Amino acid sequence: MKNPFSPLPLASVTIDDAFWALRLRVNRERTIPHILQQCRDTGRIDAFRLNWRPGAEPVPHIFWDSDVAKWIEAASYSITVDPDPDLKARLDEMVGLVASAQQPDGYLNTHFIAVEPENRWTNLRDCHELYCAGHLMEAAVAHFQAAGARTLLDPLCRYADYIGEVFGGRPGQKRGYPGHEEIELALVKLYRATGERRYLELCRFFIEERGRKPHYFDDEARVRGEDQRDFWAGTYAYMQAHRPVRGQAEPVGHAVRAMYLYAAMADLAGETGDRGLLDVCERLWERLCGRKMYITGGIGSARGIEGFAADYDLPNEAAYAETCAAIGLVFWGRRMLELTGDGRYADVVERALYNAVLGGVSLDGAKFFYDNPLASEGNHHRQPWFECACCPPNLARLLASLGRYVYRLRETDIAVDLYVQGSGKFTIEGRDVELSQETRYPWDGAVTVGFAMERPAAFGLLLRIPGWCRAARLSVNGESMDVAGAAQNGYVRIERAWNPEDRVRLDMDMPVERIRAHPDVRQDAGRVALQCGPLVYCLEGADHDVPLQRIRLPDAALLEARFADDLFGGTAVIEGEAISADLSEWGNKLYRTDSTAGTPCRMTAVPYYAWDNRRPGRMRVWIPAA
Amino acid sequence: MKNPFSPLPLASVTIDDAFWALRLRVNRERTIPHILQQCRDTGRIDAFRLNWRPGAEPVPHIFWDSDVAKWIEAASYSITVDPDPDLKARLDEMVGLVASAQQPDGYLNTHFIAVEPENRWTNLRDCHELYCAGHLMEAAVAHFQAAGARTLLDPLCRYADYIGEVFGGRPGQKRGYPGHEEIELALVKLYRATGERRYLELCRFFIEERGRKPHYFDDEARVRGEDQRDFWAGTYAYMQAHRPVRGQAEPVGHAVRAMYLYAAMADLAGETGDRGLLDVCERLWERLCGRKMYITGGIGSARGIEGFAADYDLPNEAAYAETCAAIGLVFWGRRMLELTGDGRYADVVERALYNAVLGGVSLDGAKFFYDNPLASEGNHHRQPWFECACCPPNLARLLASLGRYVYRLRETDIAVDLYVQGSGKFTIEGRDVELSQETRYPWDGAVTVGFAMERPAAFGLLLRIPGWCRAARLSVNGESMDVAGAAQNGYVRIERAWNPEDRVRLDMDMPVERIRAHPDVRQDAGRVALQCGPLVYCLEGADHDVPLQRIRLPDAALLEARFADDLFGGTAVIEGEAISADLSEWGNKLYRTDSTAGTPCRMTAVPYYAWDNRRPGRMRVWIPAA
Repeated sequence: MKNPFSPLPLASVTIDDAFWALRLRVNRERTIPHILQQCRDTGRIDAFRLNWRPGAEPVPHIFWDSDVAKWIEAASYSITVDPDPDLKARLDEMVGLVASAQQPDGYLNTHFIAVEPENRWTNLRDCHELYCAGHLMEAAVAHFQAAGARTLLDPLCRYADYIGEVFGGRPGQKRGYPGHEEIELALVKLYRATGERRYLELCRFFIEERGRKPHYFDDEARVRGEDQRDFWAGTYAYMQAHRPVRGQAEPVGHAVRAMYLYAAMADLAGETGDRGLLDVCERLWERLCGRKMYITGGIGSARGIEGFAADYDLPNEAAYAETCAAIGLVFWGRRMLELTGDGRYADVVERALYNAVLGGVSLDGAKFFYDNPLASEGNHHRQPWFECACCPPNLARLLASLGRYVYRLRETDIAVDLYVQGSGKFTIEGRDVELSQETRYPWDGAVTVGFAMERPAAFGLLLRIPGWCRAARLSVNGESMDVAGAAQNGYVRIERAWNPEDRVRLDMDMPVERIRAHPDVRQDAGRVALQCGPLVYCLEGADHDVPLQRIRLPDAALLEARFADDLFGGTAVIEGEAISADLSEWGNKLYRTDSTAGTPCRMTAVPYYAWDNRRPGRMRVWIPAA
Repeated sequence: MKNPFSPLPLASVTIDDAFWALRLRVNRERTIPHILQQCRDTGRIDAFRLNWRPGAEPVPHIFWDSDVAKWIEAASYSITVDPDPDLKARLDEMVGLVASAQQPDGYLNTHFIAVEPENRWTNLRDCHELYCAGHLMEAAVAHFQAAGARTLLDPLCRYADYIGEVFGGRPGQKRGYPGHEEIELALVKLYRATGERRYLELCRFFIEERGRKPHYFDDEARVRGEDQRDFWAGTYAYMQAHRPVRGQAEPVGHAVRAMYLYAAMADLAGETGDRGLLDVCERLWERLCGRKMYITGGIGSARGIEGFAADYDLPNEAAYAETCAAIGLVFWGRRMLELTGDGRYADVVERALYNAVLGGVSLDGAKFFYDNPLASEGNHHRQPWFECACCPPNLARLLASLGRYVYRLRETDIAVDLYVQGSGKFTIEGRDVELSQETRYPWDGAVTVGFAMERPAAFGLLLRIPGWCRAARLSVNGESMDVAGAAQNGYVRIERAWNPEDRVRLDMDMPVERIRAHPDVRQDAGRVALQCGPLVYCLEGADHDVPLQRIRLPDAALLEARFADDLFGGTAVIEGEAISADLSEWGNKLYRTDSTAGTPCRMTAVPYYAWDNRRPGRMRVWIPAA
């Protein structure tokens, strides 16, 4: 069960399409510099100088390090794809500064070094120490892979080694684990980058120890002189530590924490061939995607805990659906896809990427959503920054590494997981091959795949048939193939000795689809959402003279997608004739016995990810059906 | 424009019907004793002994006096209707205790006397001092009318006189007014009970001074050394003090405060013949009932401020709709009805009474709702008491005084505002008359009105034709009268020389009605509510095997009301055939392109006021239409 698929390295993938290329350029040119500037302006960079003194403002916060770490990661990916001497210089400066803050024993946390050194490791439940360590490790691995230098990797290995001395099951060690998971998946990355198995073992310790009795967070609270029953969230389910992970069947608590934990569990299952742990992941996945996921791929609907509500409880206007949680879902889903090759994971990764994740950043790259509602009265807008700024750099690092999500390689096969015009280079059966995609996806369902290589090479090409696709045609060099019959787990496999003249053409019907939610989702009763390909659409006030709440969509209304060159730099919109409630008979009444007449009105839906990029106004994903 | 109508005094009205009589008995036998016990158990009674010492718990709270005051008021009304020596004894004890707490200068507030005497009148914005004074005045008037004794009235007149020295427009007086309105309407009651015009003038001062610049709450905050911009609610609209009341056109802020203010404005307009102030009341009323009122008569949908949201923003599950706010709406609406004789006020009073208000108390009389949602997932339940316990005694005093809402008298007419079996005694044109109603209302729309008197008396009988009633037949001694043509402002007037043999029969059709909300109420789009007569119905989990969220009501479904003797002591239920979503095709999917098939299912709706009196479960007022 050893992880059979690997992504193509970032440097081997090009993206040159009508959709992502622009978004990635904005991320590179605007978002990444903007985040660095915000980190500077808010004191997050200076915190690594360790010169904070009592009484000074701002006080380095317990999770600041993670923001800088994610920026380093984003910048590392960015220079991998697009070498940029300026950005490289800033990256080197940041890496040097971070490394300079390391203590002689290996410890590295600006808050606990400068502000409360006496409290190191005294509150794993609340204080994000291991979380920040994890993000720094991820940054170190990314920087190492981008720059080839160990300037950050070595310090983080020393930090990891120190953490491995403090925590573990041996006498004298703390049997603790993070209140906010993250270090677990980072340790797997560190293991893969260094080959040092002790990092994988430390990951395993953190995962397996989680939720055991006697409960570490209880003991730790007592040592601090606190009553553990005073824990604000009331239950360790908040951080998935209410029971050992192997006994967990339902995603609970803080959604970002859950995603990072489950991603690490998938990693660990793959690295160790642990079928039982993979089963737990699959069980959690089914429950999440079958009962707790917005149509956008947003997750974690409950504001109070930034996390999971009851099954099927998916409020639209009050949705929390933190951007980081959707990003975490992409992380976890991609790992599940690499482990199993099952297209249902790719479907969710795609859904989250094109909708919930991408909506997290403005088209100009400098404003961000933290929470992502599916309906708005016009008062929810992206912000340039947040006190708790986890989302912006998380978006930046994911977008900068998007190339990793397009292809998967195993000994005998190359798989295309996302349809993105561009190319991927790989070596298979001893041959160097460059696969190219030509497509206008997601604006069009036609994809042409070709290869460049010196000599013909025999291998399997796995083409994904997305879950949203109900009819597709496939041909190899003009010769039709059966799609429905050939698809297994969401992929069609074509094996042959490929040569540069070969052309595989996949043509996916991409009609406008009306989507209904499960009848137990009370918030969506009697409503439809519009989807076209992987994109979820929404109505925005800016496109309508009629207030959105009055618009109903008849089941029979013809809906058509049209490409609007002038909108958002080019986008498809969905147009059709809807019904607008007629108020003429209402007078000043608020309740009546008669049905309200309707008058026809034009309706225009735009991709959800692009909402709130024009004048403020109402927004709706779920439209009342008429 | 002097107030033309007066209610019949409580002692002149009997209620002997199939609906209210039981509720009033429960209020008398269960609720009123329960509240006194809770007041005792929580220290509210002992607070009047003024023996609190620093460090002791509980600390008398700034609004505790009002709870005891409302209990005194409820008990006073109760012994008026149903003399009860035990209750009378307890009432006398409470009255004596309250009076004993009065200070030599007339001041009377347990918190500020015992806990922070140095802060008297320093924070009118937040500290409820004038609010508590108002409730004590209302209690004093009620006790005076019930017991004929001035044991509480005289102390409260002294308190009012002292307040009249402290506050006012003369040099050396504070130009302040309450942060929580209440004393304004209490002063009108005090004026009416004593004939002392200075109380009406003090009411006028508080109302007219409200919201003027420079703002009293600004000045007062500065004196306390606070920055007025730190006011937690951000705006004085929270307490309707953002501008002078005559410039207010939209109900804003905390709903209970608004109702008490508007009720006092109506009182003042009536007493002074102030047409301009009445216009303000009418404008606020139209806006409230046309855009901000739940179908139950609940108001104040926004939890954060316990008050008004934007127009048409009426969330069901998250509704706040405080019980006290619906009670306040009854207070205000009744005053508007007495001022204008317009049935649209009676319609709202009836709607609130039978639904939002009555739902505030359990059928056993010992549990209460503070907030009254129109949908629940099964986790909202009545409580025996609250830290902030305004609602239970407010319910008790309103129910105990229900007789006042049934009839109105003016020189030439007696009006029947509520159809409640029982009688009302009055003197008209020099004759003593007893009007009797025979009816099973609200279970049936047939009402027979008759009179008992020694000699025939000539006067007008005003019979209300409720707004919910679309067809009615009227006859006098078997002779038909035209209803539609004769009704003016919601009332039919029959003038004649009445004698004891006369029988007026009003027969109102009371079919099950499907109600739709205004199209701008986004939360009710595509949904219907069920109403039968004045009662709003709801679905409860207890009556259904199918989870409520799966039930849809076809427009064509036949719905019938049936009287169920065995439910809630006898109630009508609405039954019909609905559609339950069929899950067989859903598998573990959360979203699909196909519509969900439905299977027929029985549906039973019960009156909204009675929900949450059986096993916990879901509840819905607004049902998705199919």
